[in-house]
Amino acid sequence: MARLPKPITKLIESFEKLPGIGPKSAARLTFYLLHVPQSQLDDFSSALADLKRNTVECAQCFNIAETNPCSICADIARDRSLICVVEQPIDIISIERMGQYHGVYHVLHGSLNPLENIGPDELRITQLMQRITQAPDTVKEIIIATNINTEGEATAMYIQRIIRTLQKDSSDGIKELKVSRLAHGLPLGADVQYADEFTLKEAFSGRRNY
Amino acid sequence: MARLPKPITKLIESFEKLPGIGPKSAARLTFYLLHVPQSQLDDFSSALADLKRNTVECAQCFNIAETNPCSICADIARDRSLICVVEQPIDIISIERMGQYHGVYHVLHGSLNPLENIGPDELRITQLMQRITQAPDTVKEIIIATNINTEGEATAMYIQRIIRTLQKDSSDGIKELKVSRLAHGLPLGADVQYADEFTLKEAFSGRRNY
Repeated sequence: MARLPKPITKLIESFEKLPGIGPKSAARLTFYLLHVPQSQLDDFSSALADLKRNTVECAQCFNIAETNPCSICADIARDRSLICVVEQPIDIISIERMGQYHGVYHVLHGSLNPLENIGPDELRITQLMQRITQAPDTVKEIIIATNINTEGEATAMYIQRIIRTLQKDSSDGIKELKVSRLAHGLPLGADVQYADEFTLKEAFSGRRNY
Repeated sequence: MARLPKPITKLIESFEKLPGIGPKSAARLTFYLLHVPQSQLDDFSSALADLKRNTVECAQCFNIAETNPCSICADIARDRSLICVVEQPIDIISIERMGQYHGVYHVLHGSLNPLENIGPDELRITQLMQRITQAPDTVKEIIIATNINTEGEATAMYIQRIIRTLQKDSSDGIKELKVSRLAHGLPLGADVQYADEFTLKEAFSGRRNY
């Protein structure tokens, strides 16, 4: 059997590493790219190389941004009394697209998943607690917007529980802190990043106290 | 609405240009890549930049290869009396995987498509005719393996017709040249109840005696 040229297999292998792209799609994309101008390949290539080099994690909310703090945390018009907790930076895009949330965010960068050895220490949960305890009178509500699946629910439950524990031992504004979860207007199994803005709107307005 | 960091939108735009990848998939892939090591991004990046730089078109069969002639054309064990005509280099991979074809290939790099202004001159048809006329006694059969759709069928028909015209005016080996087309019918594992009427029609008209 004739083997494929190395530059082709190398690119197929890179595509195959992406989620949802199997060997056949990887080959199809690679052979497609053989027909595009070199300039398009160069643009794509530099976009990949620069993706992480030219972005930083916001030290406050852990969103991926060009600046630290990110544009949302730096925006003085944002309501700092609301913190919306999401699993991934991409979730922020969906929520911002809705255009009705004006609080700030906290990106966990994942969800609790014992099967994949992701415990609370792998997420930005300690940092969330620090944000709460460092500004006990500013933060009024934590809106948990993790995905509506087993891992997302477990993460929501976990965060709700440690905030409750925190509240027991405190006497300041933390005692009044509300913890809410997006309403289950979202269908089961849905990912926040794929939700349409109307479903998200419902989920925001119908959020329930834990 | 908070805007996305430029390095992220740049990569999303690059992914969106690929066939079958919409805005949501493009965003999903980009945000996924934020979590992979820089080395994986660099590998992917260089694979893209080098894809066309490190490959050439074989001057004989127009396959994409590392060398000219390609490894198949350079292989003395290959049967030069059979030329299998395909639309794209990727088609060669499937046929080679089968492991039962030992002839050579001819890559058209497309199919006739009047709607997209792709006529015979945009394909490597003249070059196929040159291969036939330059070695009239070597080439015994042209196996047309273009896709089974309108464009592929039109291309097959066109090639068959110009070979017939060529044969009328010649007195040498070209007169004996066979032109064949891959069999149409039900694919392996197919259910008759789900087969479309065109496939069934082909399967009936092409039925073989047991």
